[in-house]
Amino acid sequence: MTYARLGVGMVGYSFMGAVHAHAWNTAPRFFTLPLHPELTLLAGRNAEAVTAAAARFGFAETTTDWRTMLTRDDVDLVDVCTPGDTHAEIAIAALEAGKHVLCEKPLANSVAEAEAMAAAAASAAEHGVRAMVGFTYRRVPAIQLARQLVAEGALGQIRHVRADYLQDWLSDPSAPLSWRLDKSKAGSGALGDIGAHVIDLAQFITGEQITAVTGMLDTFVAERPIAASAAGLSATAGEGMGPVTVDDSAAFLARLSGGGNGVFTATRFAQGRKNAIRIEINGSRGSLAFDFEDMNVLHVYDAEEVAERAGFRRIVVTEPGHPFVAAWWPPGHGLGYEHGFTHQAVDLVTALAEGSQPTPSFADGLAVQRVLDAVERSAATGTWLAVSG
Amino acid sequence: MTYARLGVGMVGYSFMGAVHAHAWNTAPRFFTLPLHPELTLLAGRNAEAVTAAAARFGFAETTTDWRTMLTRDDVDLVDVCTPGDTHAEIAIAALEAGKHVLCEKPLANSVAEAEAMAAAAASAAEHGVRAMVGFTYRRVPAIQLARQLVAEGALGQIRHVRADYLQDWLSDPSAPLSWRLDKSKAGSGALGDIGAHVIDLAQFITGEQITAVTGMLDTFVAERPIAASAAGLSATAGEGMGPVTVDDSAAFLARLSGGGNGVFTATRFAQGRKNAIRIEINGSRGSLAFDFEDMNVLHVYDAEEVAERAGFRRIVVTEPGHPFVAAWWPPGHGLGYEHGFTHQAVDLVTALAEGSQPTPSFADGLAVQRVLDAVERSAATGTWLAVSG
Amino acid sequence: MTYARLGVGMVGYSFMGAVHAHAWNTAPRFFTLPLHPELTLLAGRNAEAVTAAAARFGFAETTTDWRTMLTRDDVDLVDVCTPGDTHAEIAIAALEAGKHVLCEKPLANSVAEAEAMAAAAASAAEHGVRAMVGFTYRRVPAIQLARQLVAEGALGQIRHVRADYLQDWLSDPSAPLSWRLDKSKAGSGALGDIGAHVIDLAQFITGEQITAVTGMLDTFVAERPIAASAAGLSATAGEGMGPVTVDDSAAFLARLSGGGNGVFTATRFAQGRKNAIRIEINGSRGSLAFDFEDMNVLHVYDAEEVAERAGFRRIVVTEPGHPFVAAWWPPGHGLGYEHGFTHQAVDLVTALAEGSQPTPSFADGLAVQRVLDAVERSAATGTWLAVSG
Amino acid sequence: MTYARLGVGMVGYSFMGAVHAHAWNTAPRFFTLPLHPELTLLAGRNAEAVTAAAARFGFAETTTDWRTMLTRDDVDLVDVCTPGDTHAEIAIAALEAGKHVLCEKPLANSVAEAEAMAAAAASAAEHGVRAMVGFTYRRVPAIQLARQLVAEGALGQIRHVRADYLQDWLSDPSAPLSWRLDKSKAGSGALGDIGAHVIDLAQFITGEQITAVTGMLDTFVAERPIAASAAGLSATAGEGMGPVTVDDSAAFLARLSGGGNGVFTATRFAQGRKNAIRIEINGSRGSLAFDFEDMNVLHVYDAEEVAERAGFRRIVVTEPGHPFVAAWWPPGHGLGYEHGFTHQAVDLVTALAEGSQPTPSFADGLAVQRVLDAVERSAATGTWLAVSG
Repeated sequence: MTYARLGVGMVGYSFMGAVHAHAWNTAPRFFTLPLHPELTLLAGRNAEAVTAAAARFGFAETTTDWRTMLTRDDVDLVDVCTPGDTHAEIAIAALEAGKHVLCEKPLANSVAEAEAMAAAAASAAEHGVRAMVGFTYRRVPAIQLARQLVAEGALGQIRHVRADYLQDWLSDPSAPLSWRLDKSKAGSGALGDIGAHVIDLAQFITGEQITAVTGMLDTFVAERPIAASAAGLSATAGEGMGPVTVDDSAAFLARLSGGGNGVFTATRFAQGRKNAIRIEINGSRGSLAFDFEDMNVLHVYDAEEVAERAGFRRIVVTEPGHPFVAAWWPPGHGLGYEHGFTHQAVDLVTALAEGSQPTPSFADGLAVQRVLDAVERSAATGTWLAVSG
Repeated sequence: MTYARLGVGMVGYSFMGAVHAHAWNTAPRFFTLPLHPELTLLAGRNAEAVTAAAARFGFAETTTDWRTMLTRDDVDLVDVCTPGDTHAEIAIAALEAGKHVLCEKPLANSVAEAEAMAAAAASAAEHGVRAMVGFTYRRVPAIQLARQLVAEGALGQIRHVRADYLQDWLSDPSAPLSWRLDKSKAGSGALGDIGAHVIDLAQFITGEQITAVTGMLDTFVAERPIAASAAGLSATAGEGMGPVTVDDSAAFLARLSGGGNGVFTATRFAQGRKNAIRIEINGSRGSLAFDFEDMNVLHVYDAEEVAERAGFRRIVVTEPGHPFVAAWWPPGHGLGYEHGFTHQAVDLVTALAEGSQPTPSFADGLAVQRVLDAVERSAATGTWLAVSG
Repeated sequence: MTYARLGVGMVGYSFMGAVHAHAWNTAPRFFTLPLHPELTLLAGRNAEAVTAAAARFGFAETTTDWRTMLTRDDVDLVDVCTPGDTHAEIAIAALEAGKHVLCEKPLANSVAEAEAMAAAAASAAEHGVRAMVGFTYRRVPAIQLARQLVAEGALGQIRHVRADYLQDWLSDPSAPLSWRLDKSKAGSGALGDIGAHVIDLAQFITGEQITAVTGMLDTFVAERPIAASAAGLSATAGEGMGPVTVDDSAAFLARLSGGGNGVFTATRFAQGRKNAIRIEINGSRGSLAFDFEDMNVLHVYDAEEVAERAGFRRIVVTEPGHPFVAAWWPPGHGLGYEHGFTHQAVDLVTALAEGSQPTPSFADGLAVQRVLDAVERSAATGTWLAVSG
Repeated sequence: MTYARLGVGMVGYSFMGAVHAHAWNTAPRFFTLPLHPELTLLAGRNAEAVTAAAARFGFAETTTDWRTMLTRDDVDLVDVCTPGDTHAEIAIAALEAGKHVLCEKPLANSVAEAEAMAAAAASAAEHGVRAMVGFTYRRVPAIQLARQLVAEGALGQIRHVRADYLQDWLSDPSAPLSWRLDKSKAGSGALGDIGAHVIDLAQFITGEQITAVTGMLDTFVAERPIAASAAGLSATAGEGMGPVTVDDSAAFLARLSGGGNGVFTATRFAQGRKNAIRIEINGSRGSLAFDFEDMNVLHVYDAEEVAERAGFRRIVVTEPGHPFVAAWWPPGHGLGYEHGFTHQAVDLVTALAEGSQPTPSFADGLAVQRVLDAVERSAATGTWLAVSG
């Protein structure tokens, strides 16, 4: 495989497909990449729809059978943007075929699947074939800065992580059933879809693991109109009602490996909160706070400062010295949601060229999956459970 | 007992004593009260200190034995501002002596004590003698407005309560042991001292009860310098070290009586958060959010508005039509911490004159105590516990 | 005159009277004062109303003729809380009678009056009789901290002052005429009533003077219902309409003595802004920002910090080491509007006991008056005018 | 000229070139356009640099002589991204050659040039050739919503516009001279570079004109190191010092055509403010407030609501029904700085296909230029000047 170009085959072309394609198109225009991504092949079951999407996204060819890309020499990387129930099958097959894999989160719909995927990734890595899971919020510059600060010791010993992921698009009981509300497709509801993000962010920023949890799941609206069609998070209602088989809201208490504790919430019923990823971390030396609704800002408190002069510092994370920012605009010209995906593409391509392991790895994805699993089981038993692994 | 005046006997003269005295002095200057509070007698064990406090606060007389006030005809109400271990003894004795009682929170250090107090209050009420517990944050105008909105149905069915009470004064491991860190005096740590407030606020605003919990308690710093002296929340170190016997941080998941859920945190280790009482409530029709660090503001979201025009409304709760505000300043001229205490005095005096039950009652205080107890026991067992009673 | 007590005679008992009385009552309960203020005499033209106010505020006696207090040995200080048209007469008479004077702002309705007052104050000072003007916002702790920071050089050379005082109580054209809209009583409108505050704050915080201005005045609603009665900023309509003879809004550009520039606004037509005093100051080394709608907070930017870690610091000005705060509550337990008045009383009493000049002096009040005058004249001529004096 | 494709020739490839190219690349991937933009030709004087830029941006060819594109049949539109001193020459030549023009702001460096350009645009329009000026902030969705609200009458009669554009990149006196500090290239400093944006936004949102002004210009740092090279807003110092020939800061008072007033500031010396475009508009029925540092949010106050329930509504402008948003991400997944440019490209292409006049037109650009000119002249004379035209 020559690395002058990086042929990308993508499976799926909905919300995640659109933003991944944008990232592949944009990354080489703003960053100097060691390989040039080419949008080679787009796979999807509906021939007409996949053709239209390919035209829009800039893919050269389409297929209605994702397995086609396994045998194409011009596809170097398979980008998995499908619902969770297909992640394991596609990713493992691709890795076994010697294709690098970028897989959307959550890694899988069960720990067993995630373990198989992590094992496949480990085997593939022996041959220089790499796998990455798409926890894209890690690459929001403010989150990168948060990680740097914790790694530098700016927070000291971590005492508390409070992390909420708040949306409201299911508050309306007439919002239709989409695949995200179907356990067989999505694995879980708010827990896996958005809770997975804050679990990963908490572990990424602190550099610690969640070691035990006790959780609480709720499904507030048990039946919804069956969806006729869907796009992004929205869908239009078709005929008849169907059961919601996933959680509408998840919350859990957690133990962290460094001795601190955590409190997590994920819900699609927080009226007025559209995509509020809120993380506050308190340590012995300081604190930090982030809200994705104001994504270009990180609030940092340094407890070593004189009390009368101390306060949460509102850092506008748009300086050239901030992670990824030099490639973009001058200070104060904020970035948006999709930039995290572009940064993800940049780091992935760089790792592939260097022959190093991109992060988050499938092992990281598995670690999140184990927390999701423990939350779900603890919610059923009403007890604390260790996060296995 | 004639109600032309209301003789107030107060026990304790530290932080809570100061703010209660201010409330008694201030209430009649800004509100038209049916009875005139007079600061008759201040009780404290240290004769010199109590005399100095009485002079400063405006009490006419002092005593080193609080029992003195039980037999004084000119004391109509006993205001209990001591640590929690003495609440039951003083309040019950006062009620039995026919004195109205205002007792600081948490009502007691145990459910058993709180039950005895509630029973005493119930008996006293039969004779027109009244008891109130000092959950003062209920009377911050923004909190009153929050309650009004929920009662009017503006939030619809309650889905979520997230409530944090964040302080940082114990983050420093050299902060001395004060009575608040001694289980025998304080009953519990962050849980009872500040967690009690957010439990009460959640129940007050929603009009619902917490029915079951699973909790997590932490003591991050096990030993601290023994305090030589203390004032407010601060203390100066003396010689030697002593054990911290209470929790530094408490968190719990909760079930609400209306079918929603709750997530609560109370901590003294949130660096940079000084007195951040944060409450967000999401219902089927809307949401509200409050932070005591910006105490004159309530944020309200109305989900019935057109999506493109909807948003959290930042209501500056200083209009003449807002609860208690007409007595104070023009719009935008904000109130402070102590105003809640003044409002508490106003409502208490009004209830006494009317012969009605002031709220929160000792039964309300007991309800909070039962939650505290369930949190503490669930943290020990690692299981969910119903809130008894 | 013995200083064991400080007999206070107050003229006026409306909005300003209420908050001044509260300050006199509260100051000795929270601060250790060298003199004990006693509310000796309250003057007002309406016998019934003044008697009621005295009872509420705690004044021992009343009079319908303020001149009475000039000859009373038990009145040491005259506190002038009347509309601006009477300030000069009362203050000068009181100073000449050997009474200390605290006079509400703006000092007068014209430069000529203010000059006479400043001259009277200078003469009185030779005999140890003191005069102070009530720019109370100077003593909000966050403003004091702002002044400290500038004085320490934390901002370096001042480049910009932007200061807005925004209210909205006149936006409604049916809001009645009160004395504040009558040029003969109030001197000017938004300019003198609220613009005076931001002028004084800008000069106080920066330690510089406004040296030249060009202004713009507007009266958006030329006629209003005549007021039947008034309280605070609100009034009820009576019969008939009358002309508004003052400005509804004022704005001006300014030159500062240190080489920087200023932009000021004062308006009663900023819908939704209730009492928003917003000041941002940018210097060569840093910036600060304040908004009275969040009065316990000061935002401070230090440009000497590393760019990637720099940001406006949100200082919650409630630490014991912050100005005036140690007397009040623990960190995070915010203060309200009236505390500035209490602090003003504390500093005034302390200065009187020390025999030093309290600030802001009548000379400071005159300096503000000269700016007001220059703004008004420049608005008429459409040119820049030097601030005389 | 067939409109199946739209051949774009761009002149300039620095900061503005990069973001325009991104817009041309991105617009057709997210929006259904009636014409397909093709990046045909990139012009710049440095052959090596323009070649590298073309490769990065995706242009098919390059030239070192912009006049080349006037005779190329495959160039339909000339996109002028050069400093202001060349706008008139290029834009007029392009229009006369029958090419559509998109020209960066400010339209020109003088009113005379802008008049010539507007005249050329008017002539060209008779032949269906169109010209647009790049006031891109108009197409931030929150600004579009602001315009909609004012147009619907939600604010009533406009009383006040306060608009600040605050940056800090020149606060450091060692920041080098770039072309933006050279009057012969840039025309003016903060005034034309960033003040032009807030002038245009104020006129766009209100639908009114600024009719008279009095201004104040300052150059705080008179000499700076000569720049060796520059990129975006930053530059590296070369040898020697040179004079700053433009303003560092501009401020002015304004009269609006509807009877209200305005206060405007533009500065590069506001330490800590990176790209803070702050606009608050107060009308008789309501207010709105915007800050580009939180660009996905618009704050709106409706004065017709009941006082006790009214407050500034924080609208997160990411709903599908908000302008341009449906093409992007789900609610709460915010947009960034460059999206305004993409929206500009979409509307321009749409107007070209429809044969309608895109806005802002060169006449709109001229209107801004006339305000800039009046500010500059009024600052010199110290008097109010009518905005001519």
